[in-house]
Formats: sequence, C-alpha cells, structure tokens
Amino acid sequence: MKYTIGDKVKVKTKDKSYTGVVMPTPELADKDVLILKLANGYNIGIRITKDTQIKKIGEVKLKGLPEYKPKINPKLPNVSVISTGGTITSRVDYKTGAVYPLEKPEELLLSIPELIDIINIRQIKQPFTLLSEDMAPKQWQKIAEEAAILLNSDDVGLIITHGTDTLHYTAAALSFMLKNVSKPIALVGGQRSSDRGSFDGALNLICAAHYCKSDLAGVSVVMHGESSDTFCYAHRGTKVRKLHTSVRNAFHTVNDIPLAKIFKDGKIKILNKNHKQRFDHHAETILDNKFEPKTALVKYHPGANPDILNHYIKNKYKGIVIEATGLGHVATQPIDKKDSWLPVIKKAVDKGIAVCFTPQTLYGRLQPHVYRTARLLQKAGVIYLQDMLPETAYVKLGWVLGHTTKPDEVKKKMLTNIAGEINPKLQPNSVLK
Amino acid sequence: MKYTIGDKVKVKTKDKSYTGVVMPTPELADKDVLILKLANGYNIGIRITKDTQIKKIGEVKLKGLPEYKPKINPKLPNVSVISTGGTITSRVDYKTGAVYPLEKPEELLLSIPELIDIINIRQIKQPFTLLSEDMAPKQWQKIAEEAAILLNSDDVGLIITHGTDTLHYTAAALSFMLKNVSKPIALVGGQRSSDRGSFDGALNLICAAHYCKSDLAGVSVVMHGESSDTFCYAHRGTKVRKLHTSVRNAFHTVNDIPLAKIFKDGKIKILNKNHKQRFDHHAETILDNKFEPKTALVKYHPGANPDILNHYIKNKYKGIVIEATGLGHVATQPIDKKDSWLPVIKKAVDKGIAVCFTPQTLYGRLQPHVYRTARLLQKAGVIYLQDMLPETAYVKLGWVLGHTTKPDEVKKKMLTNIAGEINPKLQPNSVLK
Repeated sequence: MKYTIGDKVKVKTKDKSYTGVVMPTPELADKDVLILKLANGYNIGIRITKDTQIKKIGEVKLKGLPEYKPKINPKLPNVSVISTGGTITSRVDYKTGAVYPLEKPEELLLSIPELIDIINIRQIKQPFTLLSEDMAPKQWQKIAEEAAILLNSDDVGLIITHGTDTLHYTAAALSFMLKNVSKPIALVGGQRSSDRGSFDGALNLICAAHYCKSDLAGVSVVMHGESSDTFCYAHRGTKVRKLHTSVRNAFHTVNDIPLAKIFKDGKIKILNKNHKQRFDHHAETILDNKFEPKTALVKYHPGANPDILNHYIKNKYKGIVIEATGLGHVATQPIDKKDSWLPVIKKAVDKGIAVCFTPQTLYGRLQPHVYRTARLLQKAGVIYLQDMLPETAYVKLGWVLGHTTKPDEVKKKMLTNIAGEINPKLQPNSVLK
Repeated sequence: MKYTIGDKVKVKTKDKSYTGVVMPTPELADKDVLILKLANGYNIGIRITKDTQIKKIGEVKLKGLPEYKPKINPKLPNVSVISTGGTITSRVDYKTGAVYPLEKPEELLLSIPELIDIINIRQIKQPFTLLSEDMAPKQWQKIAEEAAILLNSDDVGLIITHGTDTLHYTAAALSFMLKNVSKPIALVGGQRSSDRGSFDGALNLICAAHYCKSDLAGVSVVMHGESSDTFCYAHRGTKVRKLHTSVRNAFHTVNDIPLAKIFKDGKIKILNKNHKQRFDHHAETILDNKFEPKTALVKYHPGANPDILNHYIKNKYKGIVIEATGLGHVATQPIDKKDSWLPVIKKAVDKGIAVCFTPQTLYGRLQPHVYRTARLLQKAGVIYLQDMLPETAYVKLGWVLGHTTKPDEVKKKMLTNIAGEINPKLQPNSVLK
C-alpha cells in the first residue's frame, strides 16, 4: 500500500483495475484521491477507500535525450522552426506534477522521427519561452522579425510552435506584420504536452511539415481536424479561433472554410479555392510590425456601463474594438438614458479614437442598414467590420494604428481586405448583385 | 422608368429579372443602387445601369388588422404572453425603410392562425417595447415580476417574445430570478420581422405553444433548429447563446445538448434526459429578482492592460467575470512584469470583489489544476466557473451579488448548479471516477 510520486502502480478498486504512474495530488483536490497517469497519457483520479488495493510494479525515470545535430538530407527541402513555448514544447514533471518547458526545443523534434523523412529542419530559433497567455504584442513583433529573416532564405516554409491559448491572436498578427509572403508559414500548437501518449502536437507538426512543401502561401494555423489522429486543417491565420478549452480539434475556421485538409501521409486536399498561392521562391518578405499598444477589445453586454469607454478616453487610447450584439448593436435607446452607449461613443470618435464593431455572435456578418440602432451608431462614426472575428479585429486595429491615426485612413484600412480577414463571399441577408 | 418607395416593380438587368417592392436606399449606399424586397422576404440590391429596365406593376399598402378579442376554446389549455419588443413584433415601414414595432402585440398573434388551434392566449402583457440591445437588468427584473404573476394562474405555460440580440442573457436571468417553476416558459424571438415572407417567428411561436403544453418545466429558448421551417429546439435558458448574426437557426446549446426537438405538428422529442419535469400545477412560482448592477464582464486578450480592473475597483464594483483563455488563463508571468494580471486580480479579491473566470473559447470546461498559471490565479482567489457560458456567468454573478457579497457565500453559490448552468456530465481531461 506504500507508493510515492513517480511509481508505476497497479490499483484495484471494487469494480475496476488501473495501471499507471502516481502523480502529485493537486493542491486543492481531496487528499484521499490518487491521481494516476495512464498509458494513454490521460490523468485519472481514483478515490481511495479501505477496499482499494495499490501495488507498486515499477518506477518511471525521465530518459536523457541525445543532442540535436541537424542532418541535412540533400533530397529533402529545408524548413526552419521558431519555438516560442507552450504545451507543445512542455512536459509534465513527475516529481511535482507541474508542466515545464522542454530544456531544448530540439527534444520535441527528436521525439517525432517521421519528420526527418519529410523535411530537413535547417535551424531552430527560440526567441523566448512563454505560455501563450503571457504573450503580448511585443512578442508578436519579435516573432515577425525572426520570421522575416528565416523566410528570406532558401527554406521552402516556416514552422512556428506556440501555446494554443492565444495562437489565433498571433496568427492574425503575423498575417498583417509580414508582407509579400511567398511561402507557407504554419503555426502549430499542442493541446497535450509532448511526453503524453495522447500528444497531438506530433500529427500537427507532421502536417505542418507537409504544408510547408505545398503550393500554398501565407500564415496558417495547422491543427487537428478531428479528435483522432487522422488529419489536420490548415486554417487561414485571420479566420481561425480556439473554440474549445481542451479537445484536440479545438481550432475552427469561422465565417469561411478551412484552406486545406492535410493527411499524415502528405496528401493535401485544397478546400478553399480562395487561398494564396506560393510564388517566386526568392521574393522578399517585408517586415511591417508596427503596433499601437493603446488599443482595446471590449465586450458589450446588457447592463454594461458605458463609462468603461471613458476609462479608455481618459487613458488616451487610440482605438477600441467593441463586440456588439446581433447585426451590430449596443444600447442606444434604453429606458434609462444613462445606459446609452451612443453619447460616449460619439465622444470617443470626436476625440479621434477609432471605434470598430465586430459580431459578438462570432459567426455571421454585421449589417448596419437594417435597424435604426446601427444607423445611429454608424452615423456617430462607428466602423462596422463586416464578418471579421473580434480577436482579428483587435490585432488589425492595433497594427493599422501603428501606421496612422487619421480617422479616414484608419477606416479605409480597416475595411480593406488585407489578409483574408473579411470574407466577401459570406452572404449577408441583403446581397448586392 | 419612374418609381417610388412602396411600388411593386419588375426589374430587368442584362442577364436577370426581378419582381419586388421598392425599398428606400440606405443612407450610405451608392445612389445608383435599387433596393428591392423580393417575395421571399429578402432584400436585394440591384445596380442600375443604362441597360436596366424598371416597370411599375402595382403598389403595396399595409392592410389594417382586426382587433384582438381573445376567444377561449374550452377544449384548449390557456397560455399567457409577455411581449417585450424586438424584431418578432416589428414590421418594416415601406415608406421609410425603418423597422418599427407593431402597434399592438396582438397583430403578431393574429398573423399566425395556426396558434388558435393549439392554445388559448388568455392575455398579453406588454411591460415595455424595446429592441433587445436596449434591455438592462432592470427590464429582466420587470419581466420576471410579470412572469411570476402569470405563472401563478391556471395557465399551462408562458410565452415571452423578445428581440434576439440579448435573448440568451434574459433567458439566463429568468432562470435564476424565478424559483419553483412548475411549468414551461418559452422565450421566443424572430430573426426576420413579422411582415416578411421569410418570417421565422411564426414557427418559433407555434413550437413555443406546443412546448407550453409539454411535460417539461423551466426557462427555455425556443428557436429554429435549422434554416428551413422544419423544427425548433428548446434550449436550456442557461446553456444557450446566439452564435450567428443573421441566420434563422442562430441559437445553439453550448456544452450540453438541447432539451427537446419540437415539430410544427406538436410532436416533441426529448433529447436531454436531464430536463426538468412539469410538476404540481398549483405550485407557487417564487420571484427572486434581486440584481447587483455593479457587476462586469471583461474579455482578456494579449496586450490587455490589467489597469482596466482598477477602473472597476475604483468604481466600487462587487463582481467581475473574466473571459479567460484556454483552460482558464490570463497573463501571470509575462516578459514585461507590468503586463501581469495577477497583482490587480489579487488587489480586487482583497477588496472583496468576486473575480470569476469563464472560457473565452465558449466550448469546454476550465481546468485550474493543469498549469501553474491557473494554480497561481486560483490561489489568488479566482473562482473557476467550470463550463459556464460567460454571458450566463455574468447574469448569475449579478444575481448572486444581489443576495450576498460575503466571499465564501458568493463562491459557494457560483459553484452550485442552480439552473443547469454547470454541466457535470461534460468531461474535462482529468476524470474523477
């Protein structure tokens, strides 16, 4: 009945038996719960009663890994990798239960032997190691900088490993910050750490490698297409969103169709005819990574006090993206006049702040011509961003404001489709033929 | 070639011809565009060139409607209606193009003759007429008040017509503000105004009437299940969200399955065994509609300045729901220390403010035990709201804070499943068996 963290044990309860490695009990869990890591990589909690039998059958030790020395196979094309941190380059420490970054990003690549038959990894850059919730626009700028250097080489493509929490924000940022991208860039994450049996990052990386050899170009997120290890989707960097906390196929293209379906064996099926095509191998990628930090994303809701906009006005913000309801609405004619957002929005616009609306519903297109509410708001100067995702809109507004704060220019740029962030084919109710 | 607003015209372009009613051109549209309302209820914009032929073939006049005098069929059960405004009780004014509320809510019911064969509408209450983006918690309280009175009668159920933009917020509010609900309450909206050929509110109301006669109980949103007029879903009031700006099937149950599928002919298929069952017809519904207006919903994003929380602390807010990334994360260990949200969250908690996290991904459950970020945040006092929708969490927090501000009690209530807002069957990655 004696066991310690890291022990491999066999546990028998009244009606079931389990084999796995003893994990530390989370600080806040019941103390009579045993956390076991099963062979499939999942953790399970087992309540220990007087009937539970536990038998030690072994111990787990982390194996040392050989050093990474890139072997260049002259028959395969070169790809470089930027490693930024996140679950995909993490492992669970069996002694503490915490998730830690790998010591070297090479460890990850070594654990996926399939890769060396697809591409040569020419070099791995690691500008920093961050969980993606800790990323800020400055890190997007740094990644863009490294990416531009790596793209302006003979590499056929670029892979960027990244935490999944804010992967879609970074994908949108790179879509705007890198211009004239002639080859594929694949952003890849993992919903499970690299030492787990259920590690999903392997398939994501294999598909990303295939994607780098494809005829596509531009920034994509390459992640599981379904929960099993069958295929990945390449999602356009400006039209993708994390839509589930934990499943492997958490990323979805919104208001468009994914660019392509990528299979483990390298077969690629183009789904979206409106993709960008690879062009002149030696075309120079241009870095354009200015970003205005005084940009905010605000979610409207019933009872939301419009005074929140005064906070941004007072703090000299340059732009605000509002997640509006329905076709693009916030309170403008409420029973209690002080609940109206219209006067404060007018005030913000008068101060030269760019106020943009995006759909809180995520799916669908805004339509400012149907209801009086939106006509009033548009008249007050609100920029209606059509079917743009709120996250993409925030990133784009910060990037646009990094270049100009002149209201007319900001509006024009926000409504110009720069990186597929607006889908002109998505039909609103009123169609111009 | 002469025509005016309200004229029925036939338009021939180079390759197509259209018949419809001339609508006013939106203020901001190109002046050479003719907006035509087609027979199917959709608007179309046609660019007028020198080759376009337009012929007037008639005029459209709004017909007067007979007065509503409830006829009680003794063979049918009684249901009452609360009409609150929104598209479902609106019509397009052909002279101005604007959407206006119906003069009397009875007009809507008269336009759906099927209803009188399903239920008697005993009475219609209209506490106010608002587009739903103009609703505030005070209006939720008023609806709850009216609902409690109408439920404490011999009626078999209650229908509430409401704009769709914030229908799900109101549904959540009523789920908490009405206790001991022994019969069905159906919230119904329309994505198209009632005078349009494509009006969806008719099927929604017919299904709501059937739902009121069912064996279910509690607050549901009854809306189109697919884009055609085939069936509706009854969604649990705390697990539903508007997920599209404009399609008829814009409402979806998130992190659960819909309660039931309701067909036009009255057939009801129970989908979710975990529904609430109708009980003693004379059980008294208890009104419990306190709400703390100093409650906010904040969306986290990379680059979001934690100073925003100081705004709420300064303004003496009692509770904040944060839409966190992934399994429940915000920046806690960023490169630039001043980007961390941890110190300000600690400060808010120390001031007695309830800080709750919900998933920005919408789908899935938070899991504070996997990463250090969440362990730090939970230690700082953040309440992790499992799989609760952000909108529902905001409504619930305001309602809970209307009753108590004691941190322990608030936490306990927020984590107690009161109206199906937490789905205990939704599996996280780590399962306690």
